[in-house]
Amino acid sequence: MERMSLFLGGARSGKSRLALASAEALPGPHIFVATAQPFDYEMRERIDKHRQERDDRWRTIEAPLELASAVKEAGCSSVVIDCCTLWLSNVMLAERDVGDEVKKLLSVLQSSSGKIVLVSNEVGSGIVPDNKLGRDFRDEQGRLNQKLAALSDRVDLVVAGLPLRIKG
Amino acid sequence: MERMSLFLGGARSGKSRLALASAEALPGPHIFVATAQPFDYEMRERIDKHRQERDDRWRTIEAPLELASAVKEAGCSSVVIDCCTLWLSNVMLAERDVGDEVKKLLSVLQSSSGKIVLVSNEVGSGIVPDNKLGRDFRDEQGRLNQKLAALSDRVDLVVAGLPLRIKG
Amino acid sequence: MERMSLFLGGARSGKSRLALASAEALPGPHIFVATAQPFDYEMRERIDKHRQERDDRWRTIEAPLELASAVKEAGCSSVVIDCCTLWLSNVMLAERDVGDEVKKLLSVLQSSSGKIVLVSNEVGSGIVPDNKLGRDFRDEQGRLNQKLAALSDRVDLVVAGLPLRIKG
Repeated sequence: MERMSLFLGGARSGKSRLALASAEALPGPHIFVATAQPFDYEMRERIDKHRQERDDRWRTIEAPLELASAVKEAGCSSVVIDCCTLWLSNVMLAERDVGDEVKKLLSVLQSSSGKIVLVSNEVGSGIVPDNKLGRDFRDEQGRLNQKLAALSDRVDLVVAGLPLRIKG
Repeated sequence: MERMSLFLGGARSGKSRLALASAEALPGPHIFVATAQPFDYEMRERIDKHRQERDDRWRTIEAPLELASAVKEAGCSSVVIDCCTLWLSNVMLAERDVGDEVKKLLSVLQSSSGKIVLVSNEVGSGIVPDNKLGRDFRDEQGRLNQKLAALSDRVDLVVAGLPLRIKG
Repeated sequence: MERMSLFLGGARSGKSRLALASAEALPGPHIFVATAQPFDYEMRERIDKHRQERDDRWRTIEAPLELASAVKEAGCSSVVIDCCTLWLSNVMLAERDVGDEVKKLLSVLQSSSGKIVLVSNEVGSGIVPDNKLGRDFRDEQGRLNQKLAALSDRVDLVVAGLPLRIKG
């Protein structure tokens, strides 16, 4: 069984659902690491809806920024990280050093003794964003996805709820 | 032979052409359900060009909003629906209830005695749109694509004119 | 061995790296055709960084607009064209006739006696751009990608640094 897998897809592609289903087949305890920040009503609604959809076996750790610490805290559990894109966005909005934060995360992911299922967004297949923040975010996300995919034993591209194996 | 198939892809990926080619191999009569609204010159040009490209065997039904009715009207024909994305966009701009309209469409698609070839856009692989309408549309389209894919016997992701089978 | 291959992917998907690695296995001399225009600091940085990453075996031809001439000049070398998207963007910003320029490029690509590795972006999988230039660019890029894919013996879709063979 894979130690680390990645579900990568566009918005509303069904990647979170597939990641959860995949992690439910893993041994417990199960930990869901949520990276969303409940800034506004729109996002709060989504978070609550997603939390209701998970069953009782899941413990949730909220980690909008301290994702590496959350992975450490999860220890040898089976962990879903949903999602790396919101985390990256939070790191950039908080004006932290993206390079440092990504290095810290990758290092913890590599040394973790848990089973890890990552969720991340493909954000680079539209036209060039018209502002620098958008372009920078797109670049950082693309680089992060490459690094996560390189570390993962299995990668699925998710399209319309359907997983397409691209590694492993 | 599949009862329902879906060609999913980005803008100008060649999905309509592949859908037409796929439907031409199906038994007649052939019906083309066009969902474009000829609001402006740019769109009118596209509609006329596409109509000229189809051969005489095809009858066209224009259904910018009443897509479920058009599918019913098509009966046991071989039908191309081009495309679900423009239809969804029309439904949202007309401020109809998206949930209701999607339910109606899915129900008619499931009970249809025709062969149906669906065309739909992948719209969720760019950065987050900067306005709520854009985000809502992206979400609704993603959910609709998941539902259409679940109902379809065959799904192809179309990239640069090349079909990549992801279901069936 | 393929005469022409295409690496297609989103921004920061790793397509340039894969294209280079693929071309390094081809017989020399090796020519890198760079289409970026060093308009501003952001782009200049990228160009310099990329140039440093290539090894000494590569000769670089800068061809922001005269891509067909560059391919001719490369003769029977092994050539990487990085990338067709920046070239198309330069052609449109220079208000040249896109149809003519694309025809010229395709004709030279077809008759070239070199081995050619093309890099191009998928730009059509986000929501509809809110301005006509964005929509036109997206359409032209989609059409160009279809034509390049049709000419190529091998096409890989690149996602998170992973190549997914879709032709050849």
